[in-house]
Amino acid sequence: MKIAILGYGNLGRGVENAIKQNPDMELCYIFTRRDVKTLKVNSDTPVVNVSEIAKYKDKIDVLILCGGSATDLPKQTPEYVKMFNVVDSFDTHAKIPEHFKNVDTEAKKSGKLGIISVGWDPGLFSLNRMYANAILPEGADYTFWGRGVSQGHSDAIRRIEGVQDAKQYTVPVLSAIEKVKNGENPVLSTREKHTRECYVVAKEGADKARIEREIKTMPNYFIDYDTTVHFITQEELDKNHSGIPHGGSVIRCGKTSENTKHVIEYNLKLDSNPEFTSCVLVAYARACYRLNQEGQTGAKTVFDIAPCYLSSKSGDELRKTML
Amino acid sequence: MKIAILGYGNLGRGVENAIKQNPDMELCYIFTRRDVKTLKVNSDTPVVNVSEIAKYKDKIDVLILCGGSATDLPKQTPEYVKMFNVVDSFDTHAKIPEHFKNVDTEAKKSGKLGIISVGWDPGLFSLNRMYANAILPEGADYTFWGRGVSQGHSDAIRRIEGVQDAKQYTVPVLSAIEKVKNGENPVLSTREKHTRECYVVAKEGADKARIEREIKTMPNYFIDYDTTVHFITQEELDKNHSGIPHGGSVIRCGKTSENTKHVIEYNLKLDSNPEFTSCVLVAYARACYRLNQEGQTGAKTVFDIAPCYLSSKSGDELRKTML
Repeated sequence: MKIAILGYGNLGRGVENAIKQNPDMELCYIFTRRDVKTLKVNSDTPVVNVSEIAKYKDKIDVLILCGGSATDLPKQTPEYVKMFNVVDSFDTHAKIPEHFKNVDTEAKKSGKLGIISVGWDPGLFSLNRMYANAILPEGADYTFWGRGVSQGHSDAIRRIEGVQDAKQYTVPVLSAIEKVKNGENPVLSTREKHTRECYVVAKEGADKARIEREIKTMPNYFIDYDTTVHFITQEELDKNHSGIPHGGSVIRCGKTSENTKHVIEYNLKLDSNPEFTSCVLVAYARACYRLNQEGQTGAKTVFDIAPCYLSSKSGDELRKTML
Repeated sequence: MKIAILGYGNLGRGVENAIKQNPDMELCYIFTRRDVKTLKVNSDTPVVNVSEIAKYKDKIDVLILCGGSATDLPKQTPEYVKMFNVVDSFDTHAKIPEHFKNVDTEAKKSGKLGIISVGWDPGLFSLNRMYANAILPEGADYTFWGRGVSQGHSDAIRRIEGVQDAKQYTVPVLSAIEKVKNGENPVLSTREKHTRECYVVAKEGADKARIEREIKTMPNYFIDYDTTVHFITQEELDKNHSGIPHGGSVIRCGKTSENTKHVIEYNLKLDSNPEFTSCVLVAYARACYRLNQEGQTGAKTVFDIAPCYLSSKSGDELRKTML
């Protein structure tokens, strides 16, 4: 299977890495908007400027889009599905229906397949919400994130005057998780589900009290949470907070009769958010190619794809070894 | 959707119950090998002797087979897929390939669809093994069962001379689970993964020491495990051990680079094993009917079915609310 990637940030590097663990796939090209002469990659894959991409129309089975959800993917996915089967990790939940429609329209015209919103949330967490809801129609489900680094919240802190660098961890409230797992079906406010932990490097002479106040009262990002702020040195930040771990839980508790409860729980503990997301993208790239080979076109999400398409094993092997 | 069930034991009653939580379904008939006049059911569903089943060929969308895997399902599933779309919970792992082939052959001839081995293991646990393997190709996975009642082991104890009644719990070793969740990829023997807890009612005057010895040394069932035996009264057994709880965990730990580990964990905690299994059967009955309506025939397993087919929600709704 001939795979190419567009975009060579954390996600692009993760895909490059993940493909090495999948012998039925080959990374053929890395497309970039940057200067191809200066971009250093971790393999001997040819690097090509994205302006040339149309020339590769018939040389690629699946193009994995590794751009961001804010500005890149809303344009790129409908654009490139005109030429390629594509997989993206579009994660702006509220805009998924619109994105789906845009990709679906173009993909149906071109006869290609576009799988959108692949990763762990949206992605594996969505699958688990869906399976658990279908199986236990009467119940409630909960998604907890963390402990993990939120890129968006870290960026928001960095934009505050006097902040040199920062890392923000989203932390689930363990006592809330326990209540859910006990089947108490609690009603939980935003504040009761997660706390926020900030590690901040202040510029020399900056007013730390003001920075802390600005963080804790920031609308949308922090005001609805119990937030702790730790001022540390750049050295400490680099040494202890350079990773991008993440994870979380999807828990559904349902009843089948008055006193009969069932709890379905799915947990992820990830040392690297982008490396794991990349692994999910690569597995769905396999599905994308196979389904298009079978004549499927348009946009799809993880809900629409039978699990067997993700695996390099045959149906016989899967039934023998994993069922 | 017109559903019928064949077999009215714990599983049949569970399906009858689960259908009440799914407004797009209706339980139309209960087929039984027993005398229809004496069988009491928990709804006003008509009860029909299985000898009459052929008359109902065009009146049922899906027949859910609620018999046992040892002798019922190997015959029933290939037999009834000649007339109906069927779903079963065949759980003899080693014989799944053969069962699949038998059902597939008949279903392809009749133009019906048979989904086999539906439940939680095989079933939801298999799905989680498969997804996790496809996403993290380099790693190891582990399945733990319990704490829960094993019907087979309880039966084995009851067959010992001098035993009046018994209940056996399979218990996962928590320290082993912890090692797995820490990503240590331990090599675990049978004994290191699970222990067995037996609650036994001895007949009056029976030799308890002999019973305990016979349990602990029983080949296949107990000899490879650390087993504890508690002698209790029938009253205590009825009061404290009448439920059929079960559950367990599927955990896969994989690496994407030397120091980057990821743990995927799926847990079930079920107050009633048959009631939960029934819920899974009912969700797959929905998929069975829809896929057959789309022209799909033959045998399928949970691996072959796109998740969206299990849900009563439309694709639009699923993308809006669960992705």
